[in-house]
Amino acid sequence: MHYQLYYWTGLQGRGEFVRLALEDAGADYTDVTRVEGDEVMNAFLEGHQAGAQPFAPPFLKAGKTMVAQVAAILHFIGQQLKLVPESDALRIQALQLQLTITDLVAEVHDTHHPIATGLYYEDQKAEAAKRAKDLRDNRLPKFLGYFEQVLQQAGGIHILGTHSYVDLSLFQLISGLEYMFPKRMATLSTDLPGLKALQQRVAERPRIAAYLASERRVAFNTNGIFRHYPELDAT
Amino acid sequence: MHYQLYYWTGLQGRGEFVRLALEDAGADYTDVTRVEGDEVMNAFLEGHQAGAQPFAPPFLKAGKTMVAQVAAILHFIGQQLKLVPESDALRIQALQLQLTITDLVAEVHDTHHPIATGLYYEDQKAEAAKRAKDLRDNRLPKFLGYFEQVLQQAGGIHILGTHSYVDLSLFQLISGLEYMFPKRMATLSTDLPGLKALQQRVAERPRIAAYLASERRVAFNTNGIFRHYPELDAT
Repeated sequence: MHYQLYYWTGLQGRGEFVRLALEDAGADYTDVTRVEGDEVMNAFLEGHQAGAQPFAPPFLKAGKTMVAQVAAILHFIGQQLKLVPESDALRIQALQLQLTITDLVAEVHDTHHPIATGLYYEDQKAEAAKRAKDLRDNRLPKFLGYFEQVLQQAGGIHILGTHSYVDLSLFQLISGLEYMFPKRMATLSTDLPGLKALQQRVAERPRIAAYLASERRVAFNTNGIFRHYPELDAT
Repeated sequence: MHYQLYYWTGLQGRGEFVRLALEDAGADYTDVTRVEGDEVMNAFLEGHQAGAQPFAPPFLKAGKTMVAQVAAILHFIGQQLKLVPESDALRIQALQLQLTITDLVAEVHDTHHPIATGLYYEDQKAEAAKRAKDLRDNRLPKFLGYFEQVLQQAGGIHILGTHSYVDLSLFQLISGLEYMFPKRMATLSTDLPGLKALQQRVAERPRIAAYLASERRVAFNTNGIFRHYPELDAT
C-alpha cells in the first residue's frame, strides 16, 4: 500500500503523529505538500475530490480510502502497519488513549490561542498567560499522571503492553511539551519515570532515530501546536 | 449484550451522544450513576477496576470491555448495534465525522471556559465573551457549513447515506447549539436546510421521540456542555 499524507509544510503540527507511525513502520508514503505545495490540499478541503471530505489537515489517502482526523488515521493504518495489537479490545483501547492525547493536544493549542484560532498569539497574550498557568498547574499533571499510571499498570514498557502507535504519539507529546515548557516539564518529569523512559526508547528505535536525524523531521517551532514562548513557562 | 453507561448525573454533557445511540437502538443498558450515584465512577477513574482505565466520563462497560471517549464508544457499539454501515471505509468515515463533532463540542465547552475548566464561568466571563464572538462568527459557520456540505454530497438525508450514530450526534449538536445560541442559530439555520431536516427526522424516530418525552432525557441546562448564557449570544 502506498500512502499519501497531506499536511501543512513548515511545521510538525498534528501531522507529525501520523508521520511518526509511517516512519516507524517503514511505510511507503509521500508527504504530498512537500512536493506539490500546500495549495494541493484545497480541492480536498473544498469537497472537490473523491472520498470522505476532510474538515482540516492532516488527511491520508490509502488506495481509494481517504481518512482525516489523527486518531482515525492511526486507527486505520495501525492495523495495516501492525502498529497496534490485533485484539479488538486493545485496538479500541488504543483509540481511547489516542483520543485522550488528542484532547491534551487541543488544550495545548488553545493555550497559545485561548480566544480565537484565527488571531495571532500576540493578540491574545494576556489570556494565554492565564490559560498557560492553568495548563501547567492543573491540566498537565492530570493528563500526564494518567498516562504514567496506565503505562505502569501495563508493565511500564509499552502503554498497551506491546509496541503501538500510541507509544509513538506519547513520544511526540512528551517531546513537544518539553520544547514548549522546558521549566515545567523538568519539574513534572520526576513523577513520570515510565513516560521518560518510553520517550527515550522510542527515540532509539532504528527507523525513528534515522527519521529524527533526517531533514524530513522539521524542528519544533512557533508555527506548530507546541510553541515555546518563554513567558508561558514556569517551574 | 447488556451495557453499563457511566456519566455525571444532572446534565446531558458528552454522555448524551452515547445515550442517544443506546436509546435509538433499543439497547439493554443501565445508566449506572442514576442508580448508584456519581461516586461509583471513582474506582474506575482511579484505576482500581479491571479494564481500560478511563481519563474521564463517559465510559461504557460491555461485558469485559471497558471503553471511554465518546467517539471510541460509538465506534465500538456502532457495529454491535448496527448504527453504522458495515463497510470498513464507511466505519472509518463515521469515526472521522464523529471526531469533527468532538472537536466542535470541545470548542463549545471552551467558549464558556476559555481560561480554565476548573474555574467558574463567572470567573472568566470577559474572556468568554470574546471567545463566543469568534465561535459565533467564524467557527460555527465553518463547522456547520462543512457538515451541511458533506450531508448534501451524501444525498441530503443521512450523512453516511444511511442511518448511523453520526446522524444522532448531529441531532444532538444542532439541538444543543440552538439551546445555547438561539439568536445565532436562527441566523445560521437558513444555510443549513439539510441539517435542520435531519434534526427533525431524528427527533421523530419512534425510540428517540419516546426517549425525548421521557424523564430519562435531562433538559439542557447550564451545567452541561451547551450552556445558554444570553450575553454570549447574538444574531
